[in-house]
Amino acid sequence: MNLQSLNTPAALIDVARMNRNITRMQERLNALGVAFRPHVKTSKCKPVVQAQIAAGARGITVSTLKEAEQFFAAGVRDIVYAVGIAPGKLSQALALRRAGCDLKLLADSLAGVEEIVAFGRAHGEAFEIWIEIDVDGHRSGIAPEDPALLPVARALVDGGMRLGGVIAHAGSSYEYDTPDALMRIAEQERAGTVRAAERLRAAGIACDVVSIGSTPTALAAEHLEGVTEVRAGVYVFFDLVMHNVGVNATNEIALSVLTTVIGHQPDKGWAIVDAGWMAMSRDRGTQRQKRDFGYGLVCAEDGNELGDYRMVTANQEHGVIARDDSPDADIAKKFPIGTRLRILPNHACATGAQYPEYVALGPDGEISTWPRFSGW
Amino acid sequence: MNLQSLNTPAALIDVARMNRNITRMQERLNALGVAFRPHVKTSKCKPVVQAQIAAGARGITVSTLKEAEQFFAAGVRDIVYAVGIAPGKLSQALALRRAGCDLKLLADSLAGVEEIVAFGRAHGEAFEIWIEIDVDGHRSGIAPEDPALLPVARALVDGGMRLGGVIAHAGSSYEYDTPDALMRIAEQERAGTVRAAERLRAAGIACDVVSIGSTPTALAAEHLEGVTEVRAGVYVFFDLVMHNVGVNATNEIALSVLTTVIGHQPDKGWAIVDAGWMAMSRDRGTQRQKRDFGYGLVCAEDGNELGDYRMVTANQEHGVIARDDSPDADIAKKFPIGTRLRILPNHACATGAQYPEYVALGPDGEISTWPRFSGW
Repeated sequence: MNLQSLNTPAALIDVARMNRNITRMQERLNALGVAFRPHVKTSKCKPVVQAQIAAGARGITVSTLKEAEQFFAAGVRDIVYAVGIAPGKLSQALALRRAGCDLKLLADSLAGVEEIVAFGRAHGEAFEIWIEIDVDGHRSGIAPEDPALLPVARALVDGGMRLGGVIAHAGSSYEYDTPDALMRIAEQERAGTVRAAERLRAAGIACDVVSIGSTPTALAAEHLEGVTEVRAGVYVFFDLVMHNVGVNATNEIALSVLTTVIGHQPDKGWAIVDAGWMAMSRDRGTQRQKRDFGYGLVCAEDGNELGDYRMVTANQEHGVIARDDSPDADIAKKFPIGTRLRILPNHACATGAQYPEYVALGPDGEISTWPRFSGW
Repeated sequence: MNLQSLNTPAALIDVARMNRNITRMQERLNALGVAFRPHVKTSKCKPVVQAQIAAGARGITVSTLKEAEQFFAAGVRDIVYAVGIAPGKLSQALALRRAGCDLKLLADSLAGVEEIVAFGRAHGEAFEIWIEIDVDGHRSGIAPEDPALLPVARALVDGGMRLGGVIAHAGSSYEYDTPDALMRIAEQERAGTVRAAERLRAAGIACDVVSIGSTPTALAAEHLEGVTEVRAGVYVFFDLVMHNVGVNATNEIALSVLTTVIGHQPDKGWAIVDAGWMAMSRDRGTQRQKRDFGYGLVCAEDGNELGDYRMVTANQEHGVIARDDSPDADIAKKFPIGTRLRILPNHACATGAQYPEYVALGPDGEISTWPRFSGW
């Protein structure tokens, strides 16, 4: 098996780029004096996570209990489930802890804590809970100055659970695209989360962990005083959304979709390829950013960039490739039927999820299949 | 296992609704006097396709050769692969035909025909080819009056392949939302494809099959003179995009995502659920339609509609539920943590693809697991 014999579409990982991305983030966080806990929802792939841990990561972040189960089975013990838990999933979490997994849960309300406490008491389990802090109004969490913070903390401690720390994710960082704005949102994430920890400590409640992070803020923070660990996920592959945010060059994107030209509409300057939205995902994350890449940026089969060709529209199994500025009347000559191209994705987490496996391209052209799981 | 014990998120099929959708389309096409060849890319699920065939479908349409392989293994012989074939996939198509599958391929250019002819001759195989007709400038195909039509047909016949017919898909029908506009685009699809067949016949080239279709045009056509078969896919489940187009009511949508409330931001009127874009897909197909449903329309666990609650935003494993008109200050009381909801999807083909299996809910509440395959 080699690159030229692969069926299309296929999800390719450029292993050299991936390893550089892993080293870049780990070295940065080492220099800032904090632990790094990568979010494995991006890859859901054992060899990728093994490379992150080999580089120095301590523990992982997961978005589903299935990720926790799969990576615990692969030998990772220290796991944060970074989504508020549905009460119906507490027995699944209990089974993981009983098997020896050091699984941490999140809560951000009295009602949520009460569910965990009731279940934990009924089953004699002192769950470790991290309180989710809302630093930017983006999604879940308790704001740093919210009066609800202390009652929530007391309810979980009094209920016999363990308060492990506070955790925040400045998801709004994806909306910025200048170094100054990224530094400001990174500092807002840091300061708000540290403030919540200080309020707990001032009230006599232990709060060991201060966990923050997103790929943009992890790469933009000037200092991380008071923070104990950082989380980030998409940095391992990067993508066009992150490129527009300003944290990676397009030639650092480690994930791409291999596709084949299957036809043309020469009058329109279109080449049609066998990768549509099923292969790219429906993610249009660059739509409102400084450059809209459509469904992806077109590169040659060897990964070299070709200029301004994008996948401008996509149906389920058809993608339309066209030049940005003006229709290419010679597109059928430039990309004849059978031409193989690589498309850089808008959002690596979404594109990877369309595949049961990645094809890993080693630095010397060697090819391996890296399974990827999905589901819940 | 029952509805109440299912893990969330889960992709539910309301079997009674699905069966009504299947009957509606089949009876309509029976009345119009044409054969029906459903597109199985929507479900990729054996029990669904078996129900379509039991209702009277003749053959199937596929968007990948994997679909052809899976359904041929399940006993379906008559299959159209409705995507121009990449030359690298011809050996996979050959293997299917050699195994006894009556697989038809598409072509819409001289270059494409030459690839099939060269491969067919080298392997002693007379592939059956249908010429793709472009009736609306939507994607691939040769326009009905294009001078290229006859040379393409002659090249394939002279090359020893079999010309089976002409095939068109008025994909632009998704962009309309009035009965008149749908009737017009349906007639445009019919007339253009019939015209292409007539040009071939007038030149002495046999053209047995005239195949057209999309869910909106199949449901809107006034008559189908000259057409031999119709194709449609999403009608089997319907969805919110099709609702906006005007071909189904929301209570006819047979696919939904079961989810659990995991938190709130009461000040904003938000409930947070454990179905994000991984569970719904990133498809925002209603964004530019008459009503934007966000990531989906919220129903109660039993499937009854709740009014104007939508999933307004989604992250990978978090969905945000809010009321359309004004924030619901009591949302934490209305949907407490642990509440289970069903979300109707924008686009059933994309949402189904996020799951390795559907959960089928029978008319009497009985539950079965229906596997769904993915990949290429």
